[in-house]
Amino acid sequence: MDEINFAVLGTGGIGRRALDVSRDKPQLTPVAACDRHGVAVDHDGLDVAELLAATEGNVASDPEHRDVASDGGAATGADEGRRSAGEHGGVKQTGADAGVVASDQAEPTETPIDDIIAEATSASKQHSSSTDGIAASDRIDGVLIALPNFEHDFVPRVADRFADAGYTGVLVDVLKRSRVIGMLDDREAAFEDAGMTFVCGAGATPGFLTGAAAIAAQSFVEVEEVEIWWGVGLRSGYEDNRGTVREDVAHLPGYDIDDARAMSDDEIEAVIDEHDGVIEFEDMEHADDVLLERAGVCDAADVTVGGILDVTSDEKPTTTTVSVTGRTFDGETGTNTFQLDDATSMEANVNGPALGYLKAGVRRNRAGEYGVFGPADLMPRF
Amino acid sequence: MDEINFAVLGTGGIGRRALDVSRDKPQLTPVAACDRHGVAVDHDGLDVAELLAATEGNVASDPEHRDVASDGGAATGADEGRRSAGEHGGVKQTGADAGVVASDQAEPTETPIDDIIAEATSASKQHSSSTDGIAASDRIDGVLIALPNFEHDFVPRVADRFADAGYTGVLVDVLKRSRVIGMLDDREAAFEDAGMTFVCGAGATPGFLTGAAAIAAQSFVEVEEVEIWWGVGLRSGYEDNRGTVREDVAHLPGYDIDDARAMSDDEIEAVIDEHDGVIEFEDMEHADDVLLERAGVCDAADVTVGGILDVTSDEKPTTTTVSVTGRTFDGETGTNTFQLDDATSMEANVNGPALGYLKAGVRRNRAGEYGVFGPADLMPRF
Repeated sequence: MDEINFAVLGTGGIGRRALDVSRDKPQLTPVAACDRHGVAVDHDGLDVAELLAATEGNVASDPEHRDVASDGGAATGADEGRRSAGEHGGVKQTGADAGVVASDQAEPTETPIDDIIAEATSASKQHSSSTDGIAASDRIDGVLIALPNFEHDFVPRVADRFADAGYTGVLVDVLKRSRVIGMLDDREAAFEDAGMTFVCGAGATPGFLTGAAAIAAQSFVEVEEVEIWWGVGLRSGYEDNRGTVREDVAHLPGYDIDDARAMSDDEIEAVIDEHDGVIEFEDMEHADDVLLERAGVCDAADVTVGGILDVTSDEKPTTTTVSVTGRTFDGETGTNTFQLDDATSMEANVNGPALGYLKAGVRRNRAGEYGVFGPADLMPRF
Repeated sequence: MDEINFAVLGTGGIGRRALDVSRDKPQLTPVAACDRHGVAVDHDGLDVAELLAATEGNVASDPEHRDVASDGGAATGADEGRRSAGEHGGVKQTGADAGVVASDQAEPTETPIDDIIAEATSASKQHSSSTDGIAASDRIDGVLIALPNFEHDFVPRVADRFADAGYTGVLVDVLKRSRVIGMLDDREAAFEDAGMTFVCGAGATPGFLTGAAAIAAQSFVEVEEVEIWWGVGLRSGYEDNRGTVREDVAHLPGYDIDDARAMSDDEIEAVIDEHDGVIEFEDMEHADDVLLERAGVCDAADVTVGGILDVTSDEKPTTTTVSVTGRTFDGETGTNTFQLDDATSMEANVNGPALGYLKAGVRRNRAGEYGVFGPADLMPRF
């Protein structure tokens, strides 16, 4: 009943780590994963160790080495999952063998997302009209969208494709950008008609931290301010999180997302170098504001998001803190705070909540609640 | 759609403050309240200012004074709601005029709980078979059980009476004691059959703080320890929270709940005096442990609850803190923390969450999810 089968779209840093983290969550079974060139499906559960090792890049063209990595089991896979996908190490992936296709479990494809959709909708149709004994476990209950962040409407359009195909499960994204939420809200009726439940912004921020803010707000009858302040140390994780760093650069004064997207890797690195590798961000356009407003916690204008990124150290340059200031029913003003230990990595704080919210979303979906949910609407599940 | 009509059983400190706090929550309409001698029902919404003023005691036998208090509106009522019910001030309530009955909105009764049940079930039957135009707003969506804590099974037995009578809404308690949860779990099937949703332990602790712990746990794939540490300064609020203090005394070495229940007020005060008014508690039997285990966060044995009660000051003697220690997927150990500002009163931290969880429970109930929910299962609503 509480068992959940899920798929991952994308096997970059977030997708790979989601697969990795799921190994610690017995109720969560990854059954499908894809990247640009390949798709791996196994309704009994993917061999995550093999998949992580294969997509790690430096074993892609060496079957013997791959077998060793696979036999290495959880520990090996977990270690390797923390490194980058094919951009460091001695052997770089190229051509048809790149990424998921390097796994024994994968097939090459030119239409990876459509393949996952076909798999998810055929299973869900079988499930919903199941009188012929097809196992309910063939259903894909949730899909984590961990695709590169192209156009603003890329993820909403991916969701449209799932809805149009008749998918009746849960989609989860870990996007940070406020304007995507509006695009998803525009689709709420369509998702409801389809029987689809979309959980948006379910990573560290907004996901984790807006959830914490929504809890912290419960002391107050009126919330005056929510301040979200994050610290990320990304020295060894830099290669694996280039997309995140690029997104962050778009928040610097003088840059926007189009600038950041158009910049070469060298240009991004030049900006980082200008700041000696430590960049402070203020008033970021993070969806925390929109999501807290839609959950009724406060006005979007009362939410501020900022933080410090340090690519020269794995230590966090500042402690990630959520501060919620409000007025109590008995007339006092106070500030409740939520702090993440500096020892918890950004990766841990993205992927734990993402899967926690996926589980919460599946529970909502199974209860017949469809549409668009923000993290502050849902208590994530352990 | 999001409008919620609720009733309060009991108009002691918690019941009165719940009515008070609901005035700051536009979606929440209190439609019924009762105490031992009376019941007040108005499906269009009770006049909370009048009810609080009337039940405040020192205006009970003075209609002119009562009218003034009623006209005083929110501010007056809110101020008065913070004082005790009839145990201080010049005029003490006695006899048939005591409590709710002193309100213009109330009727005397010898069966207050049954009266509320009758009101709640007739409305819910009308609602569920409504083809005759009876307004859906006559439904009582949720009932906050804020009754004195008699026998361990008192609240579960009250719930039985609602279920037996065919109530199909939400019940919420703010109990702290672990063993009640088991009694409620034993009734889960009966509640499900009835279409009733019970949210248990929805006050400050376990409610607020286990919710925060469940969020904080999301960084980790394995939670090693949850430490809940509270501070309460209860000088001016002492009279209004005698029941809570008595419960706390039961947690001291050498006492149990039966001892505490059998003690006179003077004996309780003697214990407090022995400690010079500042009592530290360790390893309390709070339901936080059971509730975090049932939410899958950690083993009950890994949860510790303690705190300091100071009846000599309104300042908190220590800062209420939830510390969640665990292991991340990438092998680090860290401690995430959640702290309540010392300026937020125990009262604010009980009643905000209690109503927040009531709203969350109604949402579950409307989606057809019945049975027993702990706070860590639900994101409270603002």
